[in-house]
Amino acid sequence: GPVSAVLTELRCTCLHFTPRVNPKMIGKLQVFPVGPQCSKVEVIASLKNGKQVCLDPEAPFVKKSIQKILDSGKQEKLSKRKDHTL
Amino acid sequence: GPVSAVLTELRCTCLHFTPRVNPKMIGKLQVFPVGPQCSKVEVIASLKNGKQVCLDPEAPFVKKSIQKILDSGKQEKLSKRKDHTL
Repeated sequence: GPVSAVLTELRCTCLHFTPRVNPKMIGKLQVFPVGPQCSKVEVIASLKNGKQVCLDPEAPFVKKSIQKILDSGKQEKLSKRKDHTL
Repeated sequence: GPVSAVLTELRCTCLHFTPRVNPKMIGKLQVFPVGPQCSKVEVIASLKNGKQVCLDPEAPFVKKSIQKILDSGKQEKLSKRKDHTL
């Protein structure tokens, strides 16, 4: 019933989504599948400025950003960048 | 030089990858972009059995699993599953 739906929602972390985030600002991404603690998929980005923001798992830019991060390892090897950006 | 490369590698978390993981077993996924602490992209899955495993960010099944998780929110809304699998 509605009450149990509210109860499950309470244990979700994300109440609203940050519409845009520069992938370069992302220090860590956490993806929480649907589970006992929350009936929604949740994507939480820890930014390099110390902030944590929720991203919409269904937003195209989120999927693209994750793919970009996963593929960035390849560019890293190809370009053999020496400088470490702090 | 080689020494600095080794030093950077030491701060990476993942030494080897787990070849296959059932996406349903994943309780949480963490994606670490290339950064000062590690020159490689790292993907760490916390499994429902309590184990943590490293996944190869470039492996096709990892990308598919992440997309599947991100899209599972939609199926959840469509199917309006009532039962909560523990």
